[in-house]
Amino acid sequence: MEIKVDTKSPVPLYLQIKNGIAEQILVGKLQPGDRLPATRELARRLGVNRSTVTNAYDELLADGLLSSHVGQGTFVTIQSLKVESKKDLILEPLKWQKMVWDGLFAGEAEGRTISALLDLYQVSTIMDVISFSGSFPDESSFPIAEFKSSLNHALKEFGKSVLKYEQAAGLQALREHLATDMRSRNIITTPENILITNGSQQAIDLLARSFISPGDRVVVENPTYPGATNSFASLGAKLTGIPIDSQGMQIDSLEQIIVQQHPKLIYLIPTFHNPTGYTLSLERRHQLMDLVRKYKIPVLEDAYGEDLRYEGREIPSLKALDVTEQVIYFGTFSKNLLPGIRIGWCVAPSAVFTRLVALKQIGDITTSPLLQAALWDFCRRRRYQAHLERVRVIYRRRRDFMVSKLQSYFPLGTQWSEPQGGLFCWVKLPNKVDTTELLIEARQQGVVFSRGHLFHIDGSGQNTLRLSFGNLTEIELDKGLKILGSIATKLLHRSEERTPDKFRKNTLPLV
Amino acid sequence: MEIKVDTKSPVPLYLQIKNGIAEQILVGKLQPGDRLPATRELARRLGVNRSTVTNAYDELLADGLLSSHVGQGTFVTIQSLKVESKKDLILEPLKWQKMVWDGLFAGEAEGRTISALLDLYQVSTIMDVISFSGSFPDESSFPIAEFKSSLNHALKEFGKSVLKYEQAAGLQALREHLATDMRSRNIITTPENILITNGSQQAIDLLARSFISPGDRVVVENPTYPGATNSFASLGAKLTGIPIDSQGMQIDSLEQIIVQQHPKLIYLIPTFHNPTGYTLSLERRHQLMDLVRKYKIPVLEDAYGEDLRYEGREIPSLKALDVTEQVIYFGTFSKNLLPGIRIGWCVAPSAVFTRLVALKQIGDITTSPLLQAALWDFCRRRRYQAHLERVRVIYRRRRDFMVSKLQSYFPLGTQWSEPQGGLFCWVKLPNKVDTTELLIEARQQGVVFSRGHLFHIDGSGQNTLRLSFGNLTEIELDKGLKILGSIATKLLHRSEERTPDKFRKNTLPLV
Repeated sequence: MEIKVDTKSPVPLYLQIKNGIAEQILVGKLQPGDRLPATRELARRLGVNRSTVTNAYDELLADGLLSSHVGQGTFVTIQSLKVESKKDLILEPLKWQKMVWDGLFAGEAEGRTISALLDLYQVSTIMDVISFSGSFPDESSFPIAEFKSSLNHALKEFGKSVLKYEQAAGLQALREHLATDMRSRNIITTPENILITNGSQQAIDLLARSFISPGDRVVVENPTYPGATNSFASLGAKLTGIPIDSQGMQIDSLEQIIVQQHPKLIYLIPTFHNPTGYTLSLERRHQLMDLVRKYKIPVLEDAYGEDLRYEGREIPSLKALDVTEQVIYFGTFSKNLLPGIRIGWCVAPSAVFTRLVALKQIGDITTSPLLQAALWDFCRRRRYQAHLERVRVIYRRRRDFMVSKLQSYFPLGTQWSEPQGGLFCWVKLPNKVDTTELLIEARQQGVVFSRGHLFHIDGSGQNTLRLSFGNLTEIELDKGLKILGSIATKLLHRSEERTPDKFRKNTLPLV
Repeated sequence: MEIKVDTKSPVPLYLQIKNGIAEQILVGKLQPGDRLPATRELARRLGVNRSTVTNAYDELLADGLLSSHVGQGTFVTIQSLKVESKKDLILEPLKWQKMVWDGLFAGEAEGRTISALLDLYQVSTIMDVISFSGSFPDESSFPIAEFKSSLNHALKEFGKSVLKYEQAAGLQALREHLATDMRSRNIITTPENILITNGSQQAIDLLARSFISPGDRVVVENPTYPGATNSFASLGAKLTGIPIDSQGMQIDSLEQIIVQQHPKLIYLIPTFHNPTGYTLSLERRHQLMDLVRKYKIPVLEDAYGEDLRYEGREIPSLKALDVTEQVIYFGTFSKNLLPGIRIGWCVAPSAVFTRLVALKQIGDITTSPLLQAALWDFCRRRRYQAHLERVRVIYRRRRDFMVSKLQSYFPLGTQWSEPQGGLFCWVKLPNKVDTTELLIEARQQGVVFSRGHLFHIDGSGQNTLRLSFGNLTEIELDKGLKILGSIATKLLHRSEERTPDKFRKNTLPLV
């Protein structure tokens, strides 16, 4: 097994080792059933602490790529990834050495992170488990028949024109629909300021490419959505995290950070924040807008879940409060309708819009006009509104059920958010419980979730987890939470047994 | 009209002015019917030569954004772009100044080019003209009914699973199909090395992002596909162009350039090259591979048109000759099937593949699994092969017809390529004919094409043009070529009248 570590890289050593092993599994150099070296041996070989290797192995165990058998060692799991044996296929030329790619990649020398973690997460969706991970809407509510009908209508009405190239900005009919919809939310815009993207991830990435040069500072909530921070980091951005509480991003500390760090951008998810589910209060929205106006900082408003409110009053988006045109707003149909159609949109001031359109062309020319036309037809027939009304009821019920079960099954001292919309619930276990340990045991019992530290830009939050409840029935929620709660309780007791009495009083109170 | 020019920018002044005006039209600050300042006046205001402004106006006339009326002036055309009046919509806050975005964009300080030209080209497709521009397959051959049936089958067979998120690398069934197809072309690969992309443009851009740091050198054919050079340039690459002749890229000069410039990558379109239609000979393919092996330079092989050969023997792709795994190969279903489904694929060595998948996740998570499944169904039912057989006959016939009409209508001294496949014919007019002048007159008579200098990385080729014939009937080809030929003849005579006899002998012979 060839793993390299670079002590000068800003990427933590344990993560370098983890990524190195994951990559070898991904490309088939490590095959299912292969045994990994003992942690002590690998540590010696790499010249690192044994605990560093143990941390890397634990991450891989949690991701389901490795499994551990007492007294036998650590192995690549059978389910890890279906990698076809390539041995029969690849010719081995005698004369030429294979190309060595190390050192050729952009940003490699600076140790820039190009994260591929998300794909490994999907291992969990392949297996037959109760999955609280990912951020999947309820599949059983997918309006398959209606969408199929809209697809066929679009083909009939638009014909070959939706099978040709389309202008980079997107299908005019859909842009007009979205502009009308935006205006109904007090966002003043025109179709000429709306870009259609492949989900909101593409909006984030096009914006990142528009603005970020290596070394630029970006302010985000901590924790936040890793798809955004991955994009920023891939371009060499430095990140500053602002803590978040039940009222959203803590604006108090923001002014000082702006003055000291001159951030290029602020990225935030003000409504039904991912991963916590919290919503930025109206008061803080005004405070935030005052600050960014004063210091002229552009704001990227990730509005992925605006349509998923199932209780409480609507709060104006930042874009609706934006008199200086410095907020760039983007949404998606992935969480509230169908992830697989890959359609989102972005509302941007003209100067930014022009650059986004150019980068969209460079990126992939245009989003499929066929899917745009089908979505337009779907919205025009008010199928989207009807779908929203159906799923909001389902999600509210599931949230209520989940909260009641958290109360029943989880150990004293556990805290959780009670979101008024969206698909996520954020859980904070008593400090001593490590959610990586929790995940390793839970996986063995057929339950997976997303560990909270993966959303933290500083790797903190080892005792936190995100539970995505949108795609689980009450039976699954009950079973899954019972298993998680009982393991968490066990881990808490175990850690308390290890803690001598004299220290126990110094632990934080479990509120 | 607010236009700014920056004499320190590497972007030519005329292009800065052109882009500035185009942007104002795009965002609606200049409205259809608005009159532009006289060239003399604008030149004085900007402190540039009058010819610089004239060149900028000519470009915009050629793009159809402006129209010129003798004795009246130059105006924004009615058809330019449908920009809704925003005056009624935008609130003008009294207290706050609107955000100023200039200076905030990545790479702006270095004058990095983010080109948005392609969108302006599309103006020509909106209007009712005979269009030799763009690179559109024959629309009347679109297999709409069959594709619709495959869409419906895919929804029936895969159900909700193609409306969820999909792994970033793409739908396994389609990757397996493509791996089998690649192997039938002597490309040794596995599904685990195939990434599904949104057309080949996304493959180009993900590869560019994987490798290019600002200042890196990329070798390309000159002329070449601007979608590729736009992507490279947006990341700060420097370009070196190698001339191309009827045997493809001239490999003779390549070794010296490699030794002197240490390019990071070589990008080329070896088969049915865009824009010229030429194909790299087998001998040169071997020479190229010998060189890149010797100097370990990665090769990006753009195989957009491999399936569009309508005569002559197949030539092995560079990837099929690649024993050192240093060629990255990508194809698309845009030219040979349907541009609007936005599906291409990329074959990459494992080390590169891993990075591409990570960047694909960062870029847009995944390509729509619904469209991937429909395409897979379409291929599985051998509808793709049947479609290819139909269109190859059409394209060969159109090429033959076109070549015969070039012979009839174009002035003596015109040269053209006779491609064995693909959708493009490359025309070289006698040196004195400027294709910008040609386009301005042709447009008035309802004919448009792509000017050759737009494909040249050095702006040369003012006497060249690309004629895309795939989507024109014989009647349209005849009418369009007659108009182009007669204008070209007129322009040639006019220029000869201006040239005194003593100079005329110094012009290049018209072969």
